[in-house]
Amino acid sequence: MSGSITSEEELIRTYLAPLARANEGAFGLRDDCAIFSPTPGTDLVISTDAIAAGVHFFPDDRPEDIAWKALAVNLSDLAASAATPRVYQMALSFPEAPAHAFMQRFASGLADAQSAFGIVLSGGDTDRRPGPMTVTITAIGDVPAGFRLTRDGARAGDALFVTGTLGDAACGLKLRRGDEDARNWPFEANERTDLIARYLRPQPRLDIAPLLRRVATAAMDLSDGLAKDLGRLAGACSAGAVIERARLPVSTAVRRLAGADSSIEQLVLSGGDDYELLFAAPREHEAEIRTWAATAGTNVTRIGWIAETPGLLLRTNDCDRPLVPAGWEHF
Amino acid sequence: MSGSITSEEELIRTYLAPLARANEGAFGLRDDCAIFSPTPGTDLVISTDAIAAGVHFFPDDRPEDIAWKALAVNLSDLAASAATPRVYQMALSFPEAPAHAFMQRFASGLADAQSAFGIVLSGGDTDRRPGPMTVTITAIGDVPAGFRLTRDGARAGDALFVTGTLGDAACGLKLRRGDEDARNWPFEANERTDLIARYLRPQPRLDIAPLLRRVATAAMDLSDGLAKDLGRLAGACSAGAVIERARLPVSTAVRRLAGADSSIEQLVLSGGDDYELLFAAPREHEAEIRTWAATAGTNVTRIGWIAETPGLLLRTNDCDRPLVPAGWEHF
Repeated sequence: MSGSITSEEELIRTYLAPLARANEGAFGLRDDCAIFSPTPGTDLVISTDAIAAGVHFFPDDRPEDIAWKALAVNLSDLAASAATPRVYQMALSFPEAPAHAFMQRFASGLADAQSAFGIVLSGGDTDRRPGPMTVTITAIGDVPAGFRLTRDGARAGDALFVTGTLGDAACGLKLRRGDEDARNWPFEANERTDLIARYLRPQPRLDIAPLLRRVATAAMDLSDGLAKDLGRLAGACSAGAVIERARLPVSTAVRRLAGADSSIEQLVLSGGDDYELLFAAPREHEAEIRTWAATAGTNVTRIGWIAETPGLLLRTNDCDRPLVPAGWEHF
Repeated sequence: MSGSITSEEELIRTYLAPLARANEGAFGLRDDCAIFSPTPGTDLVISTDAIAAGVHFFPDDRPEDIAWKALAVNLSDLAASAATPRVYQMALSFPEAPAHAFMQRFASGLADAQSAFGIVLSGGDTDRRPGPMTVTITAIGDVPAGFRLTRDGARAGDALFVTGTLGDAACGLKLRRGDEDARNWPFEANERTDLIARYLRPQPRLDIAPLLRRVATAAMDLSDGLAKDLGRLAGACSAGAVIERARLPVSTAVRRLAGADSSIEQLVLSGGDDYELLFAAPREHEAEIRTWAATAGTNVTRIGWIAETPGLLLRTNDCDRPLVPAGWEHF
């Protein structure tokens, strides 16, 4: 099909209803409400995030990637709660009726993400209105009844861990944007592609849920940069934190870059969009965490600890210096 | 406080967190996720609706009314599913940081609506981005497990009922907008105020849930006008419908107007925003419905029936004529 969507009904029937086909409670998106039957013995975990063109993604990003990101950033929040994804509601708004070609690719990105994350569309809302294209998703997952993993449960002495590597997405963003200073970065083509993919296609750390349920005292996802998000986690626990600089996990590409350009450290500490998990756990669980990481093939690195004194410190070989909680500001 | 909000954190802490205070699973809005513990033996009913300035409300509407409407239009969908409201997620976006005075009034409208509808905030998202102020709400309610009330369950012969009166909100919109033809409408000041309030402050019909659970075969709320929404309900049932013109319930004010201006009938048939409920029930339940309505002090009027032949007919004294499913088009 060529041209643009001509009605809300066509948009829903052609592109959105197939995403809800596996969900009996979505009623083929023909109703104003969806039904969800909770698994007995579970509590629901609910997260809402909106992404808008020109703010959270580039208007010329591939439609598949926009769709993936919209779902991934929500599921990253569920991952930090150690929840199992179930269903999501999506509100879509467009300034102009979208082209069929756009919607085909957008829906295909959502289908990929649904299948990667184990979640299915249940309902939503579509509208045409001025302003940037916006995708607002409310994702619902579940955890065993009574289980709570929030960002405020850590105690002084708990070790701090992060999954994956830090700063890749921030470097990817600079490459994607074509920033002046990034034009001469000494990357192979595949390294560039991988870093940009870290920015465009965040991977929510859903597989770590069973481990978190056993060992974590607090967790959150790193969307606004380590310094800012760690400040939030420590603040929520009325505590501080010490981070060991030498332990911060970075990819080979970013390590090489940091060797040549000292400003890269700032990206590792404060760059957003990594969507890795930061969690606290009593030190005695470190062996179990290492075993899980080795088995899962997932990097999990101990980067520091929760301290009684409020404030964040970055410890290097020769000194401690304050880690300023700078990062992405939504307002 | 004067001036504008200076950070997302201030917006959340000052104006939104108090709306979630009664909800333990909202964690004071300090976490990315909320927890909801479903009542055993219930299924969840989920609805999402967005309203945007200049599209669904006037930019200079009272902040209290904008807030009320954002929640009410969602809860009207839950009402049509005979659900009991529980919690809601809210994504707010502003082109500029809102003024404290605006947010105070917006939050106070939400507090009123929460208390009127029996629902509480659980979480959400706030962002500054170009485009009109937008409020996107996902509301969650519950019904007894296994209970389903959708728009597709009616059978030929079922009687059709509507709550309240039709066309008031459409007249209220014309008055609110100051339309040329509405300037000379012969209303008293209090009638004007009441009609405008029908547009600005929709009242979701939540109290009818127990009756609907006993008698209704299909239901939906009237947001886009009777003709269009009835077309959807009948279409979902692969059926048609006959509406008896003389039975259409209208307020005293609208009846008087319709006597003087024949174009008003179109507002009654196709005007949006009434947020009354349309439902089908086997004719044998009519007595029970009347009894409920009398006890509740709520108008419930039988307006026609579901017919085997697809299409909508408007029956007057002398003839049947096709009822064209015109109404609000979102795209």
